[in-house]
Amino acid sequence: MHAYRTHNCAALREDAVGETVRLSGWVHRKRDHGGVLFIDLRDHYGITQIVADTDSPALPVLEGLRVESVVTIDGTVKARTPETVNANLPTGAIEVYAREIAVQSRAEELPMPVAGEQEYPEDIRLKYRFLDLRRETMHRNVMLRSQVIASLRRRMTEQGFNEFQTPILSASSPEGARDYLVPSRLHPGTFYALPQAPQMFKQLLMVAGFDRYFQIAPCFRDEDLRADRAPEFYQLDFEMSFVTQDDVFATIEPVLAGVFAEFANGKTVTPAGEFPRIPYREAMLKYGSDKPDLRNPLLIADISHHFEQSGFGLFEKIVGSGGVVRAIPAPNTHEKSRKFFDDMNDWARKEGFAGLGYVTRKQGEFGGPIAKNHGPENMQKIYDELGLGENDGLFFAAGKEKDAAKLAGAARTRVGEELGLIEQNAFRFCWIVDFPMFEYDEDLKKVDFSHNPFSMPQGEMEALETKDPLEILAWQYDIVCNGYELSSGAIRNHRPEIMYKAFEIAGYSREEVDANFSGMIEAFKLGAPPHGGSAPGIDRIVMLLADEPNIREVIAFPMNQRAQDLMMSAPSAVSPRQLRELHIRLAEPPRASEAEKAATDTIGQ
Amino acid sequence: MHAYRTHNCAALREDAVGETVRLSGWVHRKRDHGGVLFIDLRDHYGITQIVADTDSPALPVLEGLRVESVVTIDGTVKARTPETVNANLPTGAIEVYAREIAVQSRAEELPMPVAGEQEYPEDIRLKYRFLDLRRETMHRNVMLRSQVIASLRRRMTEQGFNEFQTPILSASSPEGARDYLVPSRLHPGTFYALPQAPQMFKQLLMVAGFDRYFQIAPCFRDEDLRADRAPEFYQLDFEMSFVTQDDVFATIEPVLAGVFAEFANGKTVTPAGEFPRIPYREAMLKYGSDKPDLRNPLLIADISHHFEQSGFGLFEKIVGSGGVVRAIPAPNTHEKSRKFFDDMNDWARKEGFAGLGYVTRKQGEFGGPIAKNHGPENMQKIYDELGLGENDGLFFAAGKEKDAAKLAGAARTRVGEELGLIEQNAFRFCWIVDFPMFEYDEDLKKVDFSHNPFSMPQGEMEALETKDPLEILAWQYDIVCNGYELSSGAIRNHRPEIMYKAFEIAGYSREEVDANFSGMIEAFKLGAPPHGGSAPGIDRIVMLLADEPNIREVIAFPMNQRAQDLMMSAPSAVSPRQLRELHIRLAEPPRASEAEKAATDTIGQ
Repeated sequence: MHAYRTHNCAALREDAVGETVRLSGWVHRKRDHGGVLFIDLRDHYGITQIVADTDSPALPVLEGLRVESVVTIDGTVKARTPETVNANLPTGAIEVYAREIAVQSRAEELPMPVAGEQEYPEDIRLKYRFLDLRRETMHRNVMLRSQVIASLRRRMTEQGFNEFQTPILSASSPEGARDYLVPSRLHPGTFYALPQAPQMFKQLLMVAGFDRYFQIAPCFRDEDLRADRAPEFYQLDFEMSFVTQDDVFATIEPVLAGVFAEFANGKTVTPAGEFPRIPYREAMLKYGSDKPDLRNPLLIADISHHFEQSGFGLFEKIVGSGGVVRAIPAPNTHEKSRKFFDDMNDWARKEGFAGLGYVTRKQGEFGGPIAKNHGPENMQKIYDELGLGENDGLFFAAGKEKDAAKLAGAARTRVGEELGLIEQNAFRFCWIVDFPMFEYDEDLKKVDFSHNPFSMPQGEMEALETKDPLEILAWQYDIVCNGYELSSGAIRNHRPEIMYKAFEIAGYSREEVDANFSGMIEAFKLGAPPHGGSAPGIDRIVMLLADEPNIREVIAFPMNQRAQDLMMSAPSAVSPRQLRELHIRLAEPPRASEAEKAATDTIGQ
Repeated sequence: MHAYRTHNCAALREDAVGETVRLSGWVHRKRDHGGVLFIDLRDHYGITQIVADTDSPALPVLEGLRVESVVTIDGTVKARTPETVNANLPTGAIEVYAREIAVQSRAEELPMPVAGEQEYPEDIRLKYRFLDLRRETMHRNVMLRSQVIASLRRRMTEQGFNEFQTPILSASSPEGARDYLVPSRLHPGTFYALPQAPQMFKQLLMVAGFDRYFQIAPCFRDEDLRADRAPEFYQLDFEMSFVTQDDVFATIEPVLAGVFAEFANGKTVTPAGEFPRIPYREAMLKYGSDKPDLRNPLLIADISHHFEQSGFGLFEKIVGSGGVVRAIPAPNTHEKSRKFFDDMNDWARKEGFAGLGYVTRKQGEFGGPIAKNHGPENMQKIYDELGLGENDGLFFAAGKEKDAAKLAGAARTRVGEELGLIEQNAFRFCWIVDFPMFEYDEDLKKVDFSHNPFSMPQGEMEALETKDPLEILAWQYDIVCNGYELSSGAIRNHRPEIMYKAFEIAGYSREEVDANFSGMIEAFKLGAPPHGGSAPGIDRIVMLLADEPNIREVIAFPMNQRAQDLMMSAPSAVSPRQLRELHIRLAEPPRASEAEKAATDTIGQ
């Protein structure tokens, strides 16, 4: 018999009744039924009920053990009586009568409970992460993450991609966020940087001829942390050569739709090949956002032209001075009280907007000051245009286009939520495409890049030479799911001449471009293929699938929100010798702040 | 038709003759045959021959292009004439007559050639790695690495392992090598460390109940570099719960044997289940090494007892004072000159040994001073014992056991190589097992740990309490292939009481243990399963399979031997603002050494 187990704790079924088995695991729960002890024995795979009755030599040993101790049990499989069968447990038809027991590890008193998943302060959970990870939800989340990543790898391989590792000790990148730096011992006064993304390496892999690259890539940003941000995060980094934007979409939609469908647990997923493609400007109009949540059926409409002349002077003034009026429908709100509408207006003011106007409607009757001033006939024209009915309310976001779009987008979300219109149990994907290449910088009073200067402009050189810069679009695209941006991507600009020209339009000389971006440009001068890619965020994908709003719930060993690993006590002080070897000195002595004292007194070295 | 290609450059066969196709790729070679231009068009997948004859509009364009330019060719597939068919090329039966051409990227003059793989200084190759990677061997090596890693992942998954990512920004580890440090912005004066190995995390994953973990894990050591060492390297890190040493072997042999067989290119591989297990002491005797190359058939033997009384006074004296004499056979050396034997002796002296004695033999006749002094009858006894024949020579390594073993091991390798006895085209695996737990430290005159203090001693507590410490063996094992150690591993000591006892034997108090290793020990006190694992080096595996002696030949973007990334200019100077944010100062200003100047003037940024 194996030293530790003949079966795992999820294996035994009714057909094993009568067998002598050996199981190992953690004492999950103990229940004493007057001289008979019931133990839930837990391992990675599941739970099996162990019974130690009065004449079992295991009884006194188990009685003396705390939960979470690790034991090996020899026993006999017995069928449970019909009334004690547990249909919720795969092993619920049987129990194991313990005969022999070996204690592998005697647990001391626990700093936090495992069974039952009682809520516990996050700092305790992170300090004792090895206990926290034993809890059912964390265990499931971490397994889900592992399975999602394995599935992504398999699907990328099936699409002809090869995985290559790019350096982690690297150079400062132009991504824009703050780098983590690593002092060099061999080259005094210089530093490596941890990659914010392997952007340059993946493009150079294309220049090197590798055709289809992907990597489950660790990335690092030394930024202030939020619930959905960690200092260290992973992306499904990929890049392809000799492709158009359509090729990228056709390649990656099956990967994303496939992995979501695999782990969606019955939720609907936008099928591959059917991801809507929404131009940036349309998204900003219809959804008030470039990250639209398509589970929300509401669509924003521009109704500015209705207010060029209007009894409602405020809107007339806004439209007259170049502003816009956007409408957000609130269908079937005839039974909502005035308070519902006023609360929305209050919410908008709290969010820093001027306010959210509205019209109520009940059996065809318009209500509210805007309707009154604009007049019911004119209102009806708007309603006809928007296809609204006699019991639908309407909210208005008015102002400069940018502000109105933003308010309309936020209101669309809130109205959708308040009215319970957001589709449950669905993952709705879309692409946002046709981002403008340039925008007018109001502060600097000049044209500048609006997103990524290294994306290929649509129309390439000809567009740059002949079109109004503000009308030029880029081969740049975001992938969005349920209102979250999973990633930006682009067909890259691989032609130095087009790059110089694009920078010239944004006001940068050839010399400035060479000084700042010589690396990529020099590589492109030695034979570069057309290429493009993207990098969907792994943590975000797992958060969506696990339905967890906090990134730390889908990472096995995360840092806390102050970028500390409380279990390992990182970051921590180092020796003077280490600093000398790295040719650096501290600008100030380490402060033994509360947080650091707490961190030092823990599980790490 | 697709914008860039209907086929890749390896796709076309004779059945495509007559088709109109579009190909994209790099101009690998150009051959001008008097008005007709032949182009080898290369992409990731292969090469296709393009023909541009005098009336092709592509001809003048191609004539004006340098090799390594990227082009898209429209043309017609034609069968080659029988005498021009290239059987070495998958597309060698056809060629494509170019009609239209689009230049995707015009290459400037190359700093190093691609086609032909002319040898080039490594620093140039690394600075222009994106060109170097286009070369056939580098391309193949990097693809091999990608495929090996994918295969390892698949095989580990098949064995029931799940992959989990452990933190890269972490705490200083007790591995012993020098850490790379990362200054913390949020916690002045403190540092993260990059992991030398995820040892503690993988053990905590077992404590957390995950049963079978693996990871293709990036590891970092700030050590001086050699041909087989990089600052950043990868290991197949794995750990299992509720297992014995036999379980670990049974699980991992199919993975290693499988991946080697898959990529061995016809070489023999030790089959899974048949990896010899060689106790450490036997390895040191028979092979003079704990990393024996089993492709070498020579076995060392201890023949000390033959020299307790001998006419050869030197050996008698060595044996008399507690030393040993080890014999290394040199079979079928009857036709070797005296010089062959003397050269071996000279080599041993150059290596710092006292010298390598020898006996020659030709048709039964012994030769050399040792044979003469020891006497032919006594020599015959040795030969009989070792099963040597009448044309076999014999080398002698004599001295203190450690020195003699080391010399014998080196001589075994050299004799095997000189006589051409090393089996070619084979990967021979073995386990080295039964490492001693403790050794006697001659300098400190005390018992100390001989390898890893955290391995479980064989016999556990009972052995520690009852046996001579120097006789206690550990559940520790190395996996060796062709003389290279792929990894160390162990069944871990998961019992705090046994850990305290083991440290006590090595002279450390309970308090010292708690002060230094509280992290692991505290975790083990809250319910730890028996567990063990190992971590075969990925780079070494790929080096063996690619038959490359230099680690940089199997990494896409390696640093040079001075830990610089010449392509990206890392490490490099950073801004005063960055240093201020990290609360550090430079102890000395950056030196603009030659190397750094060279590095700054490159492809990065």
